[in-house]
Amino acid sequence: METMQHQMMGYDRTSTMFSPDGRLLQVEYAKKTVKQGSTAIGIVCKNGVLLVADKRINEPLVVPSSIEKVFQVDEHIGATASGILSDGRILIDRARLLAQQHRVTYDEPVDTASLVKDICDMKQQFTQFGGARPFGVSLLFAGVNSEPEFLTDPTGIYFQYKATAIGEAETEIKDILNKEYKETMDLEDGIKLAIRALKKVLGKDFDIKRIDGAHIDLDKKQFKRLDTKYLAKVTK
Amino acid sequence: METMQHQMMGYDRTSTMFSPDGRLLQVEYAKKTVKQGSTAIGIVCKNGVLLVADKRINEPLVVPSSIEKVFQVDEHIGATASGILSDGRILIDRARLLAQQHRVTYDEPVDTASLVKDICDMKQQFTQFGGARPFGVSLLFAGVNSEPEFLTDPTGIYFQYKATAIGEAETEIKDILNKEYKETMDLEDGIKLAIRALKKVLGKDFDIKRIDGAHIDLDKKQFKRLDTKYLAKVTK
Amino acid sequence: METMQHQMMGYDRTSTMFSPDGRLLQVEYAKKTVKQGSTAIGIVCKNGVLLVADKRINEPLVVPSSIEKVFQVDEHIGATASGILSDGRILIDRARLLAQQHRVTYDEPVDTASLVKDICDMKQQFTQFGGARPFGVSLLFAGVNSEPEFLTDPTGIYFQYKATAIGEAETEIKDILNKEYKETMDLEDGIKLAIRALKKVLGKDFDIKRIDGAHIDLDKKQFKRLDTKYLAKVTK
Amino acid sequence: METMQHQMMGYDRTSTMFSPDGRLLQVEYAKKTVKQGSTAIGIVCKNGVLLVADKRINEPLVVPSSIEKVFQVDEHIGATASGILSDGRILIDRARLLAQQHRVTYDEPVDTASLVKDICDMKQQFTQFGGARPFGVSLLFAGVNSEPEFLTDPTGIYFQYKATAIGEAETEIKDILNKEYKETMDLEDGIKLAIRALKKVLGKDFDIKRIDGAHIDLDKKQFKRLDTKYLAKVTK
Amino acid sequence: METMQHQMMGYDRTSTMFSPDGRLLQVEYAKKTVKQGSTAIGIVCKNGVLLVADKRINEPLVVPSSIEKVFQVDEHIGATASGILSDGRILIDRARLLAQQHRVTYDEPVDTASLVKDICDMKQQFTQFGGARPFGVSLLFAGVNSEPEFLTDPTGIYFQYKATAIGEAETEIKDILNKEYKETMDLEDGIKLAIRALKKVLGKDFDIKRIDGAHIDLDKKQFKRLDTKYLAKVTK
Amino acid sequence: METMQHQMMGYDRTSTMFSPDGRLLQVEYAKKTVKQGSTAIGIVCKNGVLLVADKRINEPLVVPSSIEKVFQVDEHIGATASGILSDGRILIDRARLLAQQHRVTYDEPVDTASLVKDICDMKQQFTQFGGARPFGVSLLFAGVNSEPEFLTDPTGIYFQYKATAIGEAETEIKDILNKEYKETMDLEDGIKLAIRALKKVLGKDFDIKRIDGAHIDLDKKQFKRLDTKYLAKVTK
Amino acid sequence: METMQHQMMGYDRTSTMFSPDGRLLQVEYAKKTVKQGSTAIGIVCKNGVLLVADKRINEPLVVPSSIEKVFQVDEHIGATASGILSDGRILIDRARLLAQQHRVTYDEPVDTASLVKDICDMKQQFTQFGGARPFGVSLLFAGVNSEPEFLTDPTGIYFQYKATAIGEAETEIKDILNKEYKETMDLEDGIKLAIRALKKVLGKDFDIKRIDGAHIDLDKKQFKRLDTKYLAKVTK
Repeated sequence: METMQHQMMGYDRTSTMFSPDGRLLQVEYAKKTVKQGSTAIGIVCKNGVLLVADKRINEPLVVPSSIEKVFQVDEHIGATASGILSDGRILIDRARLLAQQHRVTYDEPVDTASLVKDICDMKQQFTQFGGARPFGVSLLFAGVNSEPEFLTDPTGIYFQYKATAIGEAETEIKDILNKEYKETMDLEDGIKLAIRALKKVLGKDFDIKRIDGAHIDLDKKQFKRLDTKYLAKVTK
Repeated sequence: METMQHQMMGYDRTSTMFSPDGRLLQVEYAKKTVKQGSTAIGIVCKNGVLLVADKRINEPLVVPSSIEKVFQVDEHIGATASGILSDGRILIDRARLLAQQHRVTYDEPVDTASLVKDICDMKQQFTQFGGARPFGVSLLFAGVNSEPEFLTDPTGIYFQYKATAIGEAETEIKDILNKEYKETMDLEDGIKLAIRALKKVLGKDFDIKRIDGAHIDLDKKQFKRLDTKYLAKVTK
Repeated sequence: METMQHQMMGYDRTSTMFSPDGRLLQVEYAKKTVKQGSTAIGIVCKNGVLLVADKRINEPLVVPSSIEKVFQVDEHIGATASGILSDGRILIDRARLLAQQHRVTYDEPVDTASLVKDICDMKQQFTQFGGARPFGVSLLFAGVNSEPEFLTDPTGIYFQYKATAIGEAETEIKDILNKEYKETMDLEDGIKLAIRALKKVLGKDFDIKRIDGAHIDLDKKQFKRLDTKYLAKVTK
Repeated sequence: METMQHQMMGYDRTSTMFSPDGRLLQVEYAKKTVKQGSTAIGIVCKNGVLLVADKRINEPLVVPSSIEKVFQVDEHIGATASGILSDGRILIDRARLLAQQHRVTYDEPVDTASLVKDICDMKQQFTQFGGARPFGVSLLFAGVNSEPEFLTDPTGIYFQYKATAIGEAETEIKDILNKEYKETMDLEDGIKLAIRALKKVLGKDFDIKRIDGAHIDLDKKQFKRLDTKYLAKVTK
Repeated sequence: METMQHQMMGYDRTSTMFSPDGRLLQVEYAKKTVKQGSTAIGIVCKNGVLLVADKRINEPLVVPSSIEKVFQVDEHIGATASGILSDGRILIDRARLLAQQHRVTYDEPVDTASLVKDICDMKQQFTQFGGARPFGVSLLFAGVNSEPEFLTDPTGIYFQYKATAIGEAETEIKDILNKEYKETMDLEDGIKLAIRALKKVLGKDFDIKRIDGAHIDLDKKQFKRLDTKYLAKVTK
Repeated sequence: METMQHQMMGYDRTSTMFSPDGRLLQVEYAKKTVKQGSTAIGIVCKNGVLLVADKRINEPLVVPSSIEKVFQVDEHIGATASGILSDGRILIDRARLLAQQHRVTYDEPVDTASLVKDICDMKQQFTQFGGARPFGVSLLFAGVNSEPEFLTDPTGIYFQYKATAIGEAETEIKDILNKEYKETMDLEDGIKLAIRALKKVLGKDFDIKRIDGAHIDLDKKQFKRLDTKYLAKVTK
Repeated sequence: METMQHQMMGYDRTSTMFSPDGRLLQVEYAKKTVKQGSTAIGIVCKNGVLLVADKRINEPLVVPSSIEKVFQVDEHIGATASGILSDGRILIDRARLLAQQHRVTYDEPVDTASLVKDICDMKQQFTQFGGARPFGVSLLFAGVNSEPEFLTDPTGIYFQYKATAIGEAETEIKDILNKEYKETMDLEDGIKLAIRALKKVLGKDFDIKRIDGAHIDLDKKQFKRLDTKYLAKVTK
């Protein structure tokens, strides 16, 4: 009710305006966009970090391998996105550039946490300054230098998770993770848990070809894409 | 109903604003422009890629050869557009410039996928920043370095297809392609399929003189325009 | 009806906004300005190209020779405009400058088609970016390097015609051209056809002093103004 | 009626917006400002050009000689303005600067027609770009290099006249000029005609002290102000 | 009535907009500000020019000498203002700077008329461009190089007067000046006339301590402030 | 009544707009902010100038000495503010910078009057240009080079006072000052008068710990803060 | 009631606009955001300063140590924030940068008070200029060079406190602090008081794992994070 009044009064037309109860309604709408995006899961395992995402393709003539949902950011960092895909691409390109610049400047891999902070500073700008809309995308970064896995929301807030999910099935998946996640899991256990969760929420829409995944193990510190065959075998 | 309320409230007046349900209405309107554009088809064949488009001319004194609907972007890349033609021209010129700059800088042909990404980044900007409208055009790029064929929408999203269509008859043509496309087709098979599909959707409006086409074969990696005589002969 | 609703909702207030059905209403209004402009005709003949326009003067003390409606752009290119005259002048000056720059840079005359493309790119900008209105003028360019005659509209779209017309009597003149135009016509035949068409649509308002014209023949490639005496004699 | 609807809908609030019938209403309003300005007349005579204007002063303590209505632009060019006086001053100063720059650059007097074109290009800008209003002034330039006399309106359109008028009595004066103007008139005849016309439209408000005038004769090509005594003598 | 309709329609919200009858309403409102300002008088006498102004102070603890209403612009030029005082200060500082720059550049005092023109050009800008309001102040400049006394209004128009007034009592004072002013007056006569006029319009509010004044005589060409004692003595 | 109509019509939404009666309503609202600020008093005494202000603190754990209400601007200049405190801080920092720059450039202390003029020019800008609101603060400057004490309002107007007040109790304090101020007072007399006035208007809220004060004496020309003990002793 | 009228009239849509009663409503809304933030407490003890904050985490798989609520700004300065977390991060990063620059430039630690002033100047800008919203965050800085502890609000105002609180339980905690705070407390006493206060306001939601804390002692002048074990032990 109060929200509707605020809409009538126009408090939700720009992210440069607070509503009388101190909310940024445009930013809240951007978060709704994320809730409509396809689902992605990240899990920290004892021997590496893991990203698994639903590609949600249903056009038969699309080349499945061309629809990345899990992106390599640097040798030791990956990311996945949920919401407006082109917004996500812009931010992930930005992250790649920052990682590259760090390597050139300091001759060592960037720390995942500081990379995430930079991306979130950029996101924050779009919630405070006029002339543009906030980014309509949540990102999930996974990296190994300090074993973090980070979730960023459209506002530019971020948290480190042991395991989390973004997108339309976020709530159900988080429930599953809360119950079944163990810090002692290895990467294979993690993949099995992620696929099991996706199977449950996608139901009969589940298809192993819709799944995109990658992991970075603690030894090699190297982003490695999970191919469909491997996924199928592991999760049989 | 809800959309109409959102229109009354003005959520659809600029692409810098999310609607309360997290949609970008101006961008959705731009997509409608595309659906009113003339139809174009792209097909990946075993020996090359193929673009065929309806020129939709009906003024007798227009010089038909002057109405390109299929454009050469670089030696090995072509493109076709549906929606606002002058918007398309701007983006295709941009693509040409990027391809040229790549040749000058790296002394080798640009990768189609990375060219498409750059164009889509530009498209994304126009959906996030104020002061301009989104581009009202979908583009279909075809290139041979990695055999891709890409569809980009006004939002700046792109997918790689084996065969797809844009414009007013998009849905019907995609249905035909889904049923009849085979990866083993050669370019001549592809042309026949494309013309057959256009004949079906255009009905008695179909005229071989309205058709513009080009292919790039895998060996020569050279954009080649298909002349009306050849099209007429092949599709007799 | 739907248009009126869109007007009430304000979709037609700026060219940076799509209407819900994907139209750019400001651009459509700009086209109406053109339809109220005085009439101009262009014809490609076997030995040259031809522009004939109605000056529409009715003040007795205006110096008739001072009211050009057909403008020289370069030695081998001419143009005529319909709509807001001062908008037309700006674009034709721009075309002159581009032609001049081309001569200085490449030491050869500019190609008519590429000149037209540059003007149309400028026109497109004014339909996408805010802070200005679209140009309210259609232009008809005639040149001889590749025998083209081009019509550009306020949107920045252009087509090559064998014969066409712009302005208030556009539709009637096009009907006449469609019936009577032949590719074998020479310049004199063309002039006769153009004057005949203008006589028909202007009726008793027709006056040979109101007519402005020029041709560029294929041999000399030189813009030549048609004086009133010649026009009177030829079309007697 | 339709205009009123367009006013209600706000089509007339800025010159960067077309009304649904393709008009620029702000520009039309600017023309109304001109129609409320004081009257000025220009006449081309066989031995020179002539500008005569009503100063419309009625405050006894204003220094009459300080209220120029006829301005010297260059040695061989004069101008008069009707509408918003401070707008006129800005444009006339601009014209002076352009004339001066021409002398410095080419070491010869500027051509009146090209000077007028430059001023009109500036006027056009103010009818297309946002952030400012159109100029609310019409200017009448008189020069002798090619014997022109030019009228420019707020839109940036201009025509060459043998004799014309601007300001509140424009229509009546034009009627008189159409009937009585002869190309064989000399400057003295012209002055008599201009004063006669002003007497008729001003009626009992007419006062020779309200009249400002200047001529440029063909031999000397030198702007010369007409003093009140001379005017009184000639028009007795 | 019509004005009220125009207010309802918003034509008076910015100086970048003409009303349908060709008026600039914001500029007219700025003039109303001036009519509420305190009164100032300027008189050209046979041996100099004179400015006398009402300071309108009624707070007992204000230091009277600190409230200048008559400002020195250069050695030979003074000015007084009516309307928004801080606007006036900005323009007078600008005038001082221009006068100084003229001395430095040309090594001679600036001509009052050209100084006034520059200030008025600045004022005009604020009536044509958006993003700021017009200046809410009228200025009265007095200088001796060519004996002028100029009144400028918020629009940027100016006239040379023999004697004039600005501010709330403008009309009454002008009536007195029209009746009593004589060109043969010397400065003392002028001061007496000015004070007499102020006494009449201020009635029992009149107090010689409220009066600020200065003159520049023709011989010394030097701005000289009139002290209260002198004023009291002369006007006893 | 009329004000309410003007509010309904939106004349009070920006300081770049005059109301139909020539007022700047946003600026008038800014003045209301000042009237809600805490009270401050300035008095010129025979041996120096004096600033006394109410800090209005009521939180027990705030460090009282940290709440300056009287600020040192330069060695010989102090200031106090009423209205939006952070606006005041910005302007006082600006004044400090200007004073410092003056010392560096001319190697002598800045004149209080010219410092105040610069601050007021900055304030005026914020009442004429769009994109920002006017400053919501009045400042009272006290300095000794020429014994001035200046009050500036949000508009950028300033006056020199012998004694004055700003803030919520402005009117009552001014009444007291008008009755009791004498030019022969020394600093101790002045402090007693200021405290007496504050006691009267604050009533039982008065507490010597709430008082902030400073003086600059004529001999040392040195800003000196008045400590609570001294204030308590002097005003016992 | 009056506020609602002001909302209807739109005075609360931007921080560049005063309401008719001289308030900045957008700034007041930003303060409401702060009142919804999680609670944080700062206490000055006899041997150091102390910050304790509620992290308010309730997701089991978030890594608790990753959710800092107390931030190190420099070796000797810490800060905590309540309101929009990403806004807080931007300002704290800014503070870090300023502190670093101070060390580099002057080779000594920055004074807490001057650091806070710089941050508050930045905050003030966002309440006066258009194109962005005010910061929706309050910050509490603690430092040891001059033993200050500062609270800054969204407006850019700041005060030095002996003990204070920000966030949703601000009022209750301040009541507790007013009653129980003593200047003789040492850091351990302070921690106990802070935890006791948080326990009271959080009730059964209290969990020592939700608490983040740090202190800077007077001797070492070194920011030191309080680990959960220590907190648990001390507050048992």
